[in-house]
Amino acid sequence: MRLGLVTSGYCMARQCLRKNVPLHRVCRRNVTGAGSTLDFNVDSKTGIAVLSMNKPPVNSLNLEFLTEINIALEKVENDKQCKGLIITSDLPKIFSAGLDITEMYQPDIDRLQEFWRTLQDMWIKLYGMSRVTIAAINGHSPAGGCLMSISCDYRIMAPNYTIGLNETQLGIVAPFWFVDVMFNTVGFRQTEMALQLGTLFKTDEALNIGLIDKVVPQEEVLNAAKLEMERWLKIPAFARQLSKTEARRPTIEKLIKRKEEDIGYFRDYITKDAIQKSLGMYLESLKNRRK
Amino acid sequence: MRLGLVTSGYCMARQCLRKNVPLHRVCRRNVTGAGSTLDFNVDSKTGIAVLSMNKPPVNSLNLEFLTEINIALEKVENDKQCKGLIITSDLPKIFSAGLDITEMYQPDIDRLQEFWRTLQDMWIKLYGMSRVTIAAINGHSPAGGCLMSISCDYRIMAPNYTIGLNETQLGIVAPFWFVDVMFNTVGFRQTEMALQLGTLFKTDEALNIGLIDKVVPQEEVLNAAKLEMERWLKIPAFARQLSKTEARRPTIEKLIKRKEEDIGYFRDYITKDAIQKSLGMYLESLKNRRK
Amino acid sequence: MRLGLVTSGYCMARQCLRKNVPLHRVCRRNVTGAGSTLDFNVDSKTGIAVLSMNKPPVNSLNLEFLTEINIALEKVENDKQCKGLIITSDLPKIFSAGLDITEMYQPDIDRLQEFWRTLQDMWIKLYGMSRVTIAAINGHSPAGGCLMSISCDYRIMAPNYTIGLNETQLGIVAPFWFVDVMFNTVGFRQTEMALQLGTLFKTDEALNIGLIDKVVPQEEVLNAAKLEMERWLKIPAFARQLSKTEARRPTIEKLIKRKEEDIGYFRDYITKDAIQKSLGMYLESLKNRRK
Repeated sequence: MRLGLVTSGYCMARQCLRKNVPLHRVCRRNVTGAGSTLDFNVDSKTGIAVLSMNKPPVNSLNLEFLTEINIALEKVENDKQCKGLIITSDLPKIFSAGLDITEMYQPDIDRLQEFWRTLQDMWIKLYGMSRVTIAAINGHSPAGGCLMSISCDYRIMAPNYTIGLNETQLGIVAPFWFVDVMFNTVGFRQTEMALQLGTLFKTDEALNIGLIDKVVPQEEVLNAAKLEMERWLKIPAFARQLSKTEARRPTIEKLIKRKEEDIGYFRDYITKDAIQKSLGMYLESLKNRRK
Repeated sequence: MRLGLVTSGYCMARQCLRKNVPLHRVCRRNVTGAGSTLDFNVDSKTGIAVLSMNKPPVNSLNLEFLTEINIALEKVENDKQCKGLIITSDLPKIFSAGLDITEMYQPDIDRLQEFWRTLQDMWIKLYGMSRVTIAAINGHSPAGGCLMSISCDYRIMAPNYTIGLNETQLGIVAPFWFVDVMFNTVGFRQTEMALQLGTLFKTDEALNIGLIDKVVPQEEVLNAAKLEMERWLKIPAFARQLSKTEARRPTIEKLIKRKEEDIGYFRDYITKDAIQKSLGMYLESLKNRRK
Repeated sequence: MRLGLVTSGYCMARQCLRKNVPLHRVCRRNVTGAGSTLDFNVDSKTGIAVLSMNKPPVNSLNLEFLTEINIALEKVENDKQCKGLIITSDLPKIFSAGLDITEMYQPDIDRLQEFWRTLQDMWIKLYGMSRVTIAAINGHSPAGGCLMSISCDYRIMAPNYTIGLNETQLGIVAPFWFVDVMFNTVGFRQTEMALQLGTLFKTDEALNIGLIDKVVPQEEVLNAAKLEMERWLKIPAFARQLSKTEARRPTIEKLIKRKEEDIGYFRDYITKDAIQKSLGMYLESLKNRRK
């Protein structure tokens, strides 16, 4: 059900809900190293790595999945053979539904803080990556899925999906560094309005405001990303990297300086009674939708 | 005479000039609380407040009128029933012509400083307002009228009017916080050029550069604003407010830190002989135009 | 050969290479005051100065040429009769190919540092100039040519040329202040991508992203610049200047604070073995291309 994915924004393990299995036990089974939720391949000929998210039902970003992604991002950064990274999804119709809401609902505080720190690290690695990064957005990409997309160097998207920082629609607020990347991508005015309204842009609207760079048919997204990558890999690597890291440095340093403050802010905000109640109702609504 | 309004930029009490009545006595008769210059209504069913400026001939912003507006803005912010604010004009063909030039010409220094402080407060309240704010721009909107418009969350405008920060055309300079809001709305390049040239954008040009968000026929402006407001009021209020205030906070804090400095700068600048002479000539030209 | 100019980015004295004359001796013959490489005229009736670059083959910016330009810029700023400045080229098909690479290849360190300081001064004078400045871009305008163009107040360009900060393509990195002006002109996203890719935009693409403001046929570029200038000169000069300098001040102050640091950074970067090797190969390739 597409609309469900679209309006969810933050991901959750729907299947768990349907089977009445306790959420915490099942959703977190993908331990780092198991490798079942991430396909990661480097083409030794082209030097292009493809990181393909494969965590049904909606590539929700929980602690373990983020940890796996971080390990993959480090591999890319440290492997001299690896010149560029394409991020895509193995699942139909969804790129990533973003943060796993079950991480935020009735959380263990230590785990909650670790979850947020791991998300911060993922973003710092991805936005600051010296390698060329391209998002091959072959499905819906709300909230954290949008963050991953706009943290790449280039975005190619299939038609008829949606992308955006829609946190506000769920009654929560995107952290300042999500907002900063959005601002860097589409400017202050579009960011301010989209944040307030929690706008999910359709593919063509996203292209129109510059949130994505190119639209190609669903079946061509990955190949188009590889072709685009070849264009970027022709540029002298050292100069390209320096241009990139210099441009993005102030935005990244802003978070690095405030990491602990940001974790504390998130922890205090998300554990407020009103927010917990709102998240609970949201999880319940997803559950009922599926019955 | 439409052109007259357009090129004026800053408002002045034309009628006074026509009747040769001393400017200071007549233009400042609208005392706070008299309520005749502002229609302010809250629809208890929808929670939408409409603030309609009704200070002939051109809704010029003098000390008393700004004070009235500030009282209304505080009412909106403090009234829990009130969820959104629409600002519009009761006068034909003019939204607001901006600051009342008679406040600046041969001024009493204490009043001049109080005038500027009240303008600062109006902007801090409006730009930082937690409620949704929509400008229903049903007439020309130069200078201070443009500031009020771009300080709202959304702008709907009728065709064939003009809007812009045209201060430069009058030989004066828009203060830094006018410029900052313009920059937030249309970016550095458009702002820099428009400020230098004192550009008044026609409705369709304003839409084109993103200075306004929507164009509807004159008679539909207010209703379109109400419809738009409904869209914004569907968003969870707390998260929307926080998104808004976080995005606008740096811009507002910049003025708050420099309020006194900015007042002093304005006072010293506007009382320069050259500027006074220029304002005097301008007032004279308006007077002659009307004879 | 147009393509040659386009892909060069940084200028070099091709003729020298063709004749196997030592580069250093020939390329630096244009001593300040000789006046042969700059046509500089002020129309006493209109107050419009035209600075026309005439340093074959490609208006490369070396120490002497930059010094001449700086002298001209100071004349404009200090001459009360002079109200506006148009910068253009006397050479066919090239506005300016940018920095003279021979200044950077196997350099004398003192001269290298003086070269960079003179470039900084040129930019500080041009970007901060109180007079109206218009670039009449009647030929290709890569790298330093692009910097000069985007440091003016307005850009008019002939069709079928290219403009952009293409440093990355040569394996070098545009300094932060080049990037800042680009950012001020076309925003973060376009700048970041163009810098990484070293994009040279065709005239119509440049218009599309706002890197230039107007396109007119080759033979009309200068006249169009004069007409545009008249529009700007109608604005009260003092207010226009103040609007301009206030908007550009933070960008200029950033460099002024870091001038020596920036010189040291450039010196250390450009004298790296890898960069020297890369510049050498590039000079060689230009030489071979011409044989």
